[in-house]
Amino acid sequence: MKTAHTFQIMNAISDTVDIKLDIEGAADYLNMSQSKIKRLLDRKILLQVWYEGWSRDRSQQFFQRFFRFDKSVSKIEQGSVLCQRNGSFELIRGFPKIQRAMLLGPALENHFSKIKTVAVEEKMNGYNVRVADIGGRIAAFTRGGLICPYSTDRAQNLLKRDFFDQHPDLVLCGEMVGPDNPYVPKDIYDVESLDFFVFDIRHKNNGKPYLLHERRKLANEYGLNQVTFFGEFSLDDAPDEITRIIRKLGKVQHEGVVIKDPQMKIAPIKYTCSQSNCADLQHAFKFYNDVGRDYFFSRVVREGFQSVEWNESEAELQKRCLQLGESILRPMIESIKQVKDGTRIADNVQIRVRDLGIVSIYQEYLRRLSVDTIFSEPESIGDEYLVKIKKINQSTNDKTESMCKGELW
Amino acid sequence: MKTAHTFQIMNAISDTVDIKLDIEGAADYLNMSQSKIKRLLDRKILLQVWYEGWSRDRSQQFFQRFFRFDKSVSKIEQGSVLCQRNGSFELIRGFPKIQRAMLLGPALENHFSKIKTVAVEEKMNGYNVRVADIGGRIAAFTRGGLICPYSTDRAQNLLKRDFFDQHPDLVLCGEMVGPDNPYVPKDIYDVESLDFFVFDIRHKNNGKPYLLHERRKLANEYGLNQVTFFGEFSLDDAPDEITRIIRKLGKVQHEGVVIKDPQMKIAPIKYTCSQSNCADLQHAFKFYNDVGRDYFFSRVVREGFQSVEWNESEAELQKRCLQLGESILRPMIESIKQVKDGTRIADNVQIRVRDLGIVSIYQEYLRRLSVDTIFSEPESIGDEYLVKIKKINQSTNDKTESMCKGELW
Repeated sequence: MKTAHTFQIMNAISDTVDIKLDIEGAADYLNMSQSKIKRLLDRKILLQVWYEGWSRDRSQQFFQRFFRFDKSVSKIEQGSVLCQRNGSFELIRGFPKIQRAMLLGPALENHFSKIKTVAVEEKMNGYNVRVADIGGRIAAFTRGGLICPYSTDRAQNLLKRDFFDQHPDLVLCGEMVGPDNPYVPKDIYDVESLDFFVFDIRHKNNGKPYLLHERRKLANEYGLNQVTFFGEFSLDDAPDEITRIIRKLGKVQHEGVVIKDPQMKIAPIKYTCSQSNCADLQHAFKFYNDVGRDYFFSRVVREGFQSVEWNESEAELQKRCLQLGESILRPMIESIKQVKDGTRIADNVQIRVRDLGIVSIYQEYLRRLSVDTIFSEPESIGDEYLVKIKKINQSTNDKTESMCKGELW
Repeated sequence: MKTAHTFQIMNAISDTVDIKLDIEGAADYLNMSQSKIKRLLDRKILLQVWYEGWSRDRSQQFFQRFFRFDKSVSKIEQGSVLCQRNGSFELIRGFPKIQRAMLLGPALENHFSKIKTVAVEEKMNGYNVRVADIGGRIAAFTRGGLICPYSTDRAQNLLKRDFFDQHPDLVLCGEMVGPDNPYVPKDIYDVESLDFFVFDIRHKNNGKPYLLHERRKLANEYGLNQVTFFGEFSLDDAPDEITRIIRKLGKVQHEGVVIKDPQMKIAPIKYTCSQSNCADLQHAFKFYNDVGRDYFFSRVVREGFQSVEWNESEAELQKRCLQLGESILRPMIESIKQVKDGTRIADNVQIRVRDLGIVSIYQEYLRRLSVDTIFSEPESIGDEYLVKIKKINQSTNDKTESMCKGELW
């Protein structure tokens, strides 16, 4: 899921102090002119990303330098990361944006007109990371191409080395899901802490994806968690089948589906449940002044299209209207009341780590992303530590407080 | 009321072909340097506005040139208009933005702490125009400083010359209200076609306002329509009194109130009814892709604050949620269905004129504002003509159509 803060996180940390990109080598590797590389650096489209954790890592010297593409450049997607190590290069391609069907039936017919069947997998509600082996270490990249130290730590714990030892050239694309998720905490899945669910496997450098069934087979061989596969349907059956799946997923508050060409030649499309839109709105309106206006708008519009496509009765429509209104007003009212009563509102999330060193690294990471946080003392939980984090939504707090003091909008 | 299209209209027509501003004279008059005036012209902050109607006017040669301030400059408000005529100048000051109370009680207490009583007048739901006599002709200026030919024509019909003959230095600020209103048509008032309701009288040049009671007296003497005066209340009584008024106004779908310092030393503030927010949303979501995201957002947030201030019961809150959801979804769903069935959605408005010449001038005015319209044939109505206008909301039509064709968002 795209969280309310994704945009911020995608456009964040750039440690430009220590640029040591081998411009000649990078130009050669990327098949670009050196002047273009220089221009990308000057214009801060190609930005250095430095993973603090690794430099402190006792077990290994830090030889890598990472440079992320903050915008798409030629055929290199936004969020792609160029990894430079001992004079050689690797490129972790940005994960392509998946477009959304507003009216499922027409979208399927139009988008997949050249193929006979589509495969349907679950779109889980967590955050998208790409996990790869870089010089013998597993790293987890966010959508924007940052190395999230918490996700990296979790990926290192969750994924055994054997997959990467045998496939150092592959990138696992998946969703980090569960309650110990500092971006989109959800307890709607059967996940105790945080798990990684693969939905794509791609090659480094060219970004070429595995065919769907081969990918599922490969992930299965290594015992990797995968997103649920709902089946492969003929284009005729797909609208009804997917609607049935969506209604079912909605009932358990799950997010939706991604519909794919099994051959991975046509880009996948996504379609989501009303309940997920409303849950997004509920969360966003708690922090009404911190979240982008487009975030609200897009979710509201989806409701309109789904209602039309489902040809809803007056009673169903009324239920949808009430649900929408409640998703917007109740959390906002709750926040206003809290601030009025002198309580600061905050987004309460948590992380679970094995090594307490990760906590301070993650704290520094969020600080650099300008996320205002309060970390609680770690609590022991089995052989791990749980750390509660309050993310302070300053703008909503400030705005609400000023309104309560009688300032004008 | 700020309509969904106000912003567009405020930032519109500038006929820069024929700039003949006497820079030396203007600099002298405005007490600015000539280089500053030149800079304002270069940066298109000071823009020529030319009222097409007058040049075609058989009864009078066109001697005026108008220049509007597209942004605030020094102490000159956005929307101010500099009128140049035969080498002399007049300045019609922009109408100051009125800030909004989100929580009425705290806002009254904080904002009016230095005075004992506040006066409450109705905020009518139409559009704000300033009417002034410029060289013997009555002209109506929009919020942004354009001369709206329709409003000008109506003002010339509605207002007798005697007020301006005796007070050529005064500007009538008021609301154009009624069903024959091409921006915000409303039949909630006892207005058959279009009327002008004064809410402020100000001096040209310095913009100094009349004291509230003197203004009401003066307007009364000339038989001018005025916005309803609800009374003058002590600061202690004001929150309850105004809440009572707002609840009453809401029941008849009226917009809200403006709360004023009777001495006009402290800036007025506005406060509106939930029903008016919802009516705005209903209209805006019909054209969901044409209207700015902030427009939706601001109205939704007002609902949250009012509910908290009114300390609503669970039943009242639920009613408000349903109303909000319905105001958003129902019009959007209606639009999607219409487009799906092959009908173009449009905003149906109408104007009523005495002189058919105004119609083509107004049509040209809207064309220059990039408002896409279809004008119907004039229908006779008494000694006037009614012209129906379809405003085509291209973006909503296009977006909805493309979704219906199965394109992706």
